[in-house]
Amino acid sequence: MTCYPGFLCGCRCAASRAAALRSLLKYQAAAAASSLLAGLPLPGGFQRRLLTCSQLSPVESLLPSFAAAGFPPQQESSGSPGRGPFALGQQSVSGFALSRLDQRRGRSEGSAGLACGGGFRPSRVVVVAKTTRYEFEQQRYRYAGLSEEDLKQLLALKGSNYSGLLERHHIHTKNVEHVVDSLRNERIEVRLVKRREYDEDTVRWADAVISAGGDGTMLLAASKVFDRFKPVIGVNTDPERSEGHLCLPVRYTYSFPEALQKFYRGEFRWQWRQRIRIYLEGTGINPTPVDLHEQQLSQEQHSRALVNGRFYDQRSEVSGPHLLPVRALNEVFIGESLSSRVNYKSCKPSFKFSLHRASYYEVSVDDGPWEKQKSSGLNVCTGTGSKAWSYNINKVASQAVEEILKIAKKHESLNLPLSRELIQKVTNEYNDSLLYSPEEPKMFFSIREPIANRVFSSSLQRGFFSKVCVRSRCWDACMVVDGGTSFEFNDGAIASILINTEDALRTVLLEE
Amino acid sequence: MTCYPGFLCGCRCAASRAAALRSLLKYQAAAAASSLLAGLPLPGGFQRRLLTCSQLSPVESLLPSFAAAGFPPQQESSGSPGRGPFALGQQSVSGFALSRLDQRRGRSEGSAGLACGGGFRPSRVVVVAKTTRYEFEQQRYRYAGLSEEDLKQLLALKGSNYSGLLERHHIHTKNVEHVVDSLRNERIEVRLVKRREYDEDTVRWADAVISAGGDGTMLLAASKVFDRFKPVIGVNTDPERSEGHLCLPVRYTYSFPEALQKFYRGEFRWQWRQRIRIYLEGTGINPTPVDLHEQQLSQEQHSRALVNGRFYDQRSEVSGPHLLPVRALNEVFIGESLSSRVNYKSCKPSFKFSLHRASYYEVSVDDGPWEKQKSSGLNVCTGTGSKAWSYNINKVASQAVEEILKIAKKHESLNLPLSRELIQKVTNEYNDSLLYSPEEPKMFFSIREPIANRVFSSSLQRGFFSKVCVRSRCWDACMVVDGGTSFEFNDGAIASILINTEDALRTVLLEE
Repeated sequence: MTCYPGFLCGCRCAASRAAALRSLLKYQAAAAASSLLAGLPLPGGFQRRLLTCSQLSPVESLLPSFAAAGFPPQQESSGSPGRGPFALGQQSVSGFALSRLDQRRGRSEGSAGLACGGGFRPSRVVVVAKTTRYEFEQQRYRYAGLSEEDLKQLLALKGSNYSGLLERHHIHTKNVEHVVDSLRNERIEVRLVKRREYDEDTVRWADAVISAGGDGTMLLAASKVFDRFKPVIGVNTDPERSEGHLCLPVRYTYSFPEALQKFYRGEFRWQWRQRIRIYLEGTGINPTPVDLHEQQLSQEQHSRALVNGRFYDQRSEVSGPHLLPVRALNEVFIGESLSSRVNYKSCKPSFKFSLHRASYYEVSVDDGPWEKQKSSGLNVCTGTGSKAWSYNINKVASQAVEEILKIAKKHESLNLPLSRELIQKVTNEYNDSLLYSPEEPKMFFSIREPIANRVFSSSLQRGFFSKVCVRSRCWDACMVVDGGTSFEFNDGAIASILINTEDALRTVLLEE
Repeated sequence: MTCYPGFLCGCRCAASRAAALRSLLKYQAAAAASSLLAGLPLPGGFQRRLLTCSQLSPVESLLPSFAAAGFPPQQESSGSPGRGPFALGQQSVSGFALSRLDQRRGRSEGSAGLACGGGFRPSRVVVVAKTTRYEFEQQRYRYAGLSEEDLKQLLALKGSNYSGLLERHHIHTKNVEHVVDSLRNERIEVRLVKRREYDEDTVRWADAVISAGGDGTMLLAASKVFDRFKPVIGVNTDPERSEGHLCLPVRYTYSFPEALQKFYRGEFRWQWRQRIRIYLEGTGINPTPVDLHEQQLSQEQHSRALVNGRFYDQRSEVSGPHLLPVRALNEVFIGESLSSRVNYKSCKPSFKFSLHRASYYEVSVDDGPWEKQKSSGLNVCTGTGSKAWSYNINKVASQAVEEILKIAKKHESLNLPLSRELIQKVTNEYNDSLLYSPEEPKMFFSIREPIANRVFSSSLQRGFFSKVCVRSRCWDACMVVDGGTSFEFNDGAIASILINTEDALRTVLLEE
């Protein structure tokens, strides 16, 4: 590793430069660095506190049965004194230091079979329901003081189908009711919430979280769950219109009681979906997350942003590594601003330097040397995310495969019959190679639309890594987590992106 | 073509629906539609007026020599009564109706050889100089009330190299001076301007425009030139750091007088770079362009934006097709907001519906049926742009080619030695197939990161077309022209994107 600029950012005088150099050397010794990075509390009120017995939720107190159900046996947890949930405090502050061990453990989790010992019977469940497109339109036009009749007309004007939207809305609502009723019939306490009512208190109150919507709703539901013992379960409430990779098989949408029975009887397995954590350091960073789903930007928020914006350019202190208060279930994207986050910054006088499309940064993977990059952004995903955006960035079209094979055929004058089947087979096999298990504690890194020329190389384009460090050279960029939370990421900021199996999200695998 | 929703947008009652249907049928008759779309003036003060002799610039009055230099012979111009520049008025309002003929003419232009009759001797030249990164940083920190010393320190803090930036700045400045001096030595009147001073009056004043910077500066320079007789010439002022596809060969950066002599002697050929025009119609459209290079968002601009924003959701009138006051030299990109354009909208209460990453729209190419699409955006480029963003969207990495060939080899148990050379040869040939001549009047359309699932097909992924219509289903999207100018493009808006050879940009081809 040539150099780790992060630790040199703070140097104003020789003395502190020396100090910085010392911390650099310290950093280079992985273990030291680990403890150094890991000691930090999670900002935003997400500090993991040492749990006491009284604080244990029914789910947590089911610990033994978890083991049978594929929960990582505590004795593997790197000789930390604690055992079971009581040790969470220590474990979670052991950051990097644990991550290697964690990863081994992660693999053992991955290999846990479908055989299920103990069952799972929550007593308090929060159901997070998505906002349907119909509700969205309604909010929008209500805000503009229009009636239902106007809404109908306006949708017609736009060529949208009012009754179609209404139908989808009813289907969703029916399915949500089915889930809620099934839970209540089992005397399970239920809180039905929308995005805006879904907060940390609600999560704390619940033994389990059920997302009722599509994958977007599942990402939202997961985004507030930092307790690795709290299961998050997805129900796809509009199977005809949404994919629902992260949800239970579609049949349980219509027969949710069956799913509940399987939970009770332990006829399922826990799936530990690995998540990515991010440490942010350097100059001009702002570890405050911004919710991109935010339903409304209020005037006062806006003025606040204006003020922040005003003084933005004067923020020049160097900050040490902050562990960001989010965990990425799908991916971390770094690049040109593609989010309402920018909106806030609009309000600062901004001097645009280059076209916004291209982002400039330096990248170091697995502590390798720093490489200059110019592209439309970087994507670092989990196994879960390998089916999402990362897949769309990296997959090839059969059209391209056909042309590539034709060219090779011509050059080598091969006797290669280019049948539709062959082309499709090759395309599928290539694209499938981009996918991997959500439980594997590794990240897939890819550069989006790399720009190679005399000035910028693009030797490093994609691959599996366990640590990615990115140093921003952008002017108006952000780091977006699961397309839902965004952080400023401008020149001078450095992100360390890695997987710590402590962060895994607990979900449920049910057979079809 | 199943239906053209644009003309149905306006229907509130049966009567007007009938009227709309009539205009729909009318639209379906291409010719009728053409004249209908083309009659519109260019908003934003870009109306082409009928030129009178006195208005002719020295360049324009050189018409005969243009013919020799590859200028399209007027008699081909579809029997429009006018001849030469005097006919521009009629020609330019003939829009669609001419476009087929224009395209044929475009090809003949393309085939015009390097043989050059008359020379080219401008008497008034505007030189548009880029803002260097050093100047940018300076502006930025000056704004924050910091001294040059502070600037040095801050750049160091960020790991940027102050003296490096300063050196690049000096190289650029030296090269700009060289160009300006060479012109003045030839008694050519010169106006040296920066982005902010570069306006329509300056363009009108000049016989020719010289961009001094990289391709970005060339795009800026071209963006204000609507007179097909006014040449725009690019000089790459930092060849070591920028590619300069759109600029003269690098040697002329250092020996510009030589270039001038060749212009005089006609030892060059005019290159007519085709450009894309856009017609926008539907609901909630706003044909006002926003300059993404804008150096500063003033407070009052900002409040204006706030007000527009406030009432945005109530804008519901249907507008007929507007010819937008821009021409795309590289490309038109439609998709998620990736620009300061969004900044303005931040200030409107916005209800975010879906994750910002994916854009929804319907596409019809060459008047074919409408197809639902979900992706990270659409790119429609010219031959010039086929070397730019479009190339980065569509090119394949040798890494991918290698894997594809391996898979094919395995399936067909081929005797195919996968040498580095073969892989590189195939990769290059595939990627080269994405490039085409700037003079060809055709567009390359590609879908960026298409999302295919049970719900959205992605059969249509890329190809050459002469007309692309896009209907927005996005909530926070924009249409970005050459990465420099942006237009709102939200649900209900419809864009018709095509090439009209009337819009070609006149540039110069010099041999190395």
